[in-house]
Amino acid sequence: MSTKMDVSHSSLPVRFSQRRQFTSELAISFLMQQAVENPLVISLAAGLVDPQTLPVAEVLQATTEMLASETVGKGALQYGTTAGYVRLRRLLLDHFAQLEKCSVEQLGIGIDRILLTTGSQQLLSLVCEVLFDPGDICLVAGPTYFVFAGNLAGVGARTVTIPSDEHGMQIDALDQALNVLHQAGDLPRVKMIYVVSYYDNPAGTCLSEERSRQLAAVAKKWSRDHQIFILEDAAYRELRYDGPEYPSVWSMDESREQVIYTQTFSKTFSPGIRVGFGIVPSALVQPLADRKGNEDFGSSNFAQHLMAGVLQQGLYASHLVDVKHGYKLKRDAMLIAAKKYFSKLPGVTWRHPHGGLYVWMSLPENIPTSFRSDLFRRAVEAGVMYVPGEICYADSPDSRPNHQMRLSFGVQTPEGIDEGMRRLSIAVQSCL
Amino acid sequence: MSTKMDVSHSSLPVRFSQRRQFTSELAISFLMQQAVENPLVISLAAGLVDPQTLPVAEVLQATTEMLASETVGKGALQYGTTAGYVRLRRLLLDHFAQLEKCSVEQLGIGIDRILLTTGSQQLLSLVCEVLFDPGDICLVAGPTYFVFAGNLAGVGARTVTIPSDEHGMQIDALDQALNVLHQAGDLPRVKMIYVVSYYDNPAGTCLSEERSRQLAAVAKKWSRDHQIFILEDAAYRELRYDGPEYPSVWSMDESREQVIYTQTFSKTFSPGIRVGFGIVPSALVQPLADRKGNEDFGSSNFAQHLMAGVLQQGLYASHLVDVKHGYKLKRDAMLIAAKKYFSKLPGVTWRHPHGGLYVWMSLPENIPTSFRSDLFRRAVEAGVMYVPGEICYADSPDSRPNHQMRLSFGVQTPEGIDEGMRRLSIAVQSCL
Repeated sequence: MSTKMDVSHSSLPVRFSQRRQFTSELAISFLMQQAVENPLVISLAAGLVDPQTLPVAEVLQATTEMLASETVGKGALQYGTTAGYVRLRRLLLDHFAQLEKCSVEQLGIGIDRILLTTGSQQLLSLVCEVLFDPGDICLVAGPTYFVFAGNLAGVGARTVTIPSDEHGMQIDALDQALNVLHQAGDLPRVKMIYVVSYYDNPAGTCLSEERSRQLAAVAKKWSRDHQIFILEDAAYRELRYDGPEYPSVWSMDESREQVIYTQTFSKTFSPGIRVGFGIVPSALVQPLADRKGNEDFGSSNFAQHLMAGVLQQGLYASHLVDVKHGYKLKRDAMLIAAKKYFSKLPGVTWRHPHGGLYVWMSLPENIPTSFRSDLFRRAVEAGVMYVPGEICYADSPDSRPNHQMRLSFGVQTPEGIDEGMRRLSIAVQSCL
Repeated sequence: MSTKMDVSHSSLPVRFSQRRQFTSELAISFLMQQAVENPLVISLAAGLVDPQTLPVAEVLQATTEMLASETVGKGALQYGTTAGYVRLRRLLLDHFAQLEKCSVEQLGIGIDRILLTTGSQQLLSLVCEVLFDPGDICLVAGPTYFVFAGNLAGVGARTVTIPSDEHGMQIDALDQALNVLHQAGDLPRVKMIYVVSYYDNPAGTCLSEERSRQLAAVAKKWSRDHQIFILEDAAYRELRYDGPEYPSVWSMDESREQVIYTQTFSKTFSPGIRVGFGIVPSALVQPLADRKGNEDFGSSNFAQHLMAGVLQQGLYASHLVDVKHGYKLKRDAMLIAAKKYFSKLPGVTWRHPHGGLYVWMSLPENIPTSFRSDLFRRAVEAGVMYVPGEICYADSPDSRPNHQMRLSFGVQTPEGIDEGMRRLSIAVQSCL
């Protein structure tokens, strides 16, 4: 086992684990540092939620009610269980049934399938921990959620990128890729297919109903000797502003054993409370809970009680209406600004998302957008920042498309979005 | 890489990771199940804190104040940084300086060395992740904190047990063990020495000043080609009821690069809020933060803001006085009951802890205390439960002492403790 030595800090070197070698700093840290060093920059990079939407009054109401009862309050302040607060899990099952437009009974699962986590990020990380050895394979879309690509790298997983279009991952290409892996004898190493099924981070697309159905079928087809799971990351599901309302990939799996579904309240309510959850196949319930038990015994019980109150008192539902209204205006502002400033620039195109927080823009292929590119430097000089498309691919750095940008409309005001897009267009124009 | 198949749940087997094979269910889960199935049992097993002490009024005051300000409230509800809330880290540095009886300047470190975690458990887990490959070695006391033994097993680490006595780990034996490892060529695999330095879980002992000094020296002596870290778990440090006040192992390391120090507010304030922290050598700051970033982006920012308010408003200090007063009475109740019910039983001895939550009791060596023993069954029948000493050893199951018990006085009332001890003595007597 190779052990890299690190002599940078102390006089004695440290022998780190192999896992440490696999783990890299999140790209987001670089962006945050840039933001700190350039405080006047308009960030279209940050995936933070709009500070205006943060529900201070709702949380005050929920905590006050929770702590008004000595019994409930003490329950929230004591240790919880690793899997999470039972009342919240019941409420989440109801909530999930609403999203699935069916009754709880029709879901066909109980609360034992629900695992509460510190944001959905922890669920993504736990899934990697229990399934992947170094060299195991995950199929992902290109582009994909870059933080999850880091999780896969962190356990030494290999990734295979499947092209995507305006309807999400191309399932024909997925099927072909699995066939290639099969021919190469690599099928036993294939553990999972990862999709952000609603208003994808970064591409803004939804997986269409037809694609979801095909995805479930293809995963089943290639699950020959062992289960190939689908990890459905539905972080943005509830941030729908218009357009069709698609069923989940989860709903396409009648066995309820194939899809790991995850969602979070970070985008729709508050990332600071840090409550996410997974709905998981029965075979993964205990392995995921065991890993989580070893990692932290369970997420903040207080935060879980708080979210239970927020859901039960109807504070979440009413807040979501406001949040969606605000984000829709911002989405519109970004699309209007894109048309205003970019439509005359040759070779520049962008997607029109029906929800979520991101617009995915492509430049001519000869204009790199990476952190080290001219464009990124000029953009920061012009006072605007974006996420380079390059980091949203899990391929080896050489073969990644490098002419795209993820533009977030979550944080800025509509006016800030307009000004940010204006500045960005100046930087782009100077590179054309 | 071996891959065990699991066919228990779905029709198709699942190929889990090696890490999954290493990870086992926490023993605590078995105890909780026993408690659920035997609701009338008096648990002297649970390491929960006394529900009577849970600070509902204090938390209400702190949250109300926090959410009264839109700015502070929104800060708490937004994403935080992976390392944790800066104001809380400043307060923790002050707090730590108080415990170390010196000024912040004299500590010789800044807030960049503090990492906030989901309980101190997450810090323990992260340290294992960044340092240990399968086969790497950690030296631990016998007995030791059994959950951490699970963390070590979870990364495939080997453990070497060092005997302990009423002053904690025996440093002469530690030195000898390291020499044996050196002779065997295993020194490069030695990554760490783990100690619970204050009111040990389970043994109730403190590492004396002399031992702490020797421990730091021995770790330094054997850190020849690489740093051998000491992980000082100070979870119970502030639960001191009487007896001497020892300096930390951390204070013995003038380089500030050798000791990973961790503490939590779970025992002294509220485990449900789930805030712990580590003070770590500079070489580990980035590796630990990177791992944590991959696992969850940071613990609940809301919970961290809450704890900052609790500390700053003096609510923690006043609450701690009450908590210690209550636990001291319970500690006394347990020692009085031990004397009353066990002093006539031949070969039964127990430690007298000056703090923490546990009394460590030894029976004659021919009386096993394990989950499968006659004694455990008879104890549950008599209506009382304890933690078998056996699970508090990290050795291979065959070579573990199996005639001891960890008795917790945290949860029960003084009357419940007396009754629990009475029932336990009946079960023990029936096995003598």
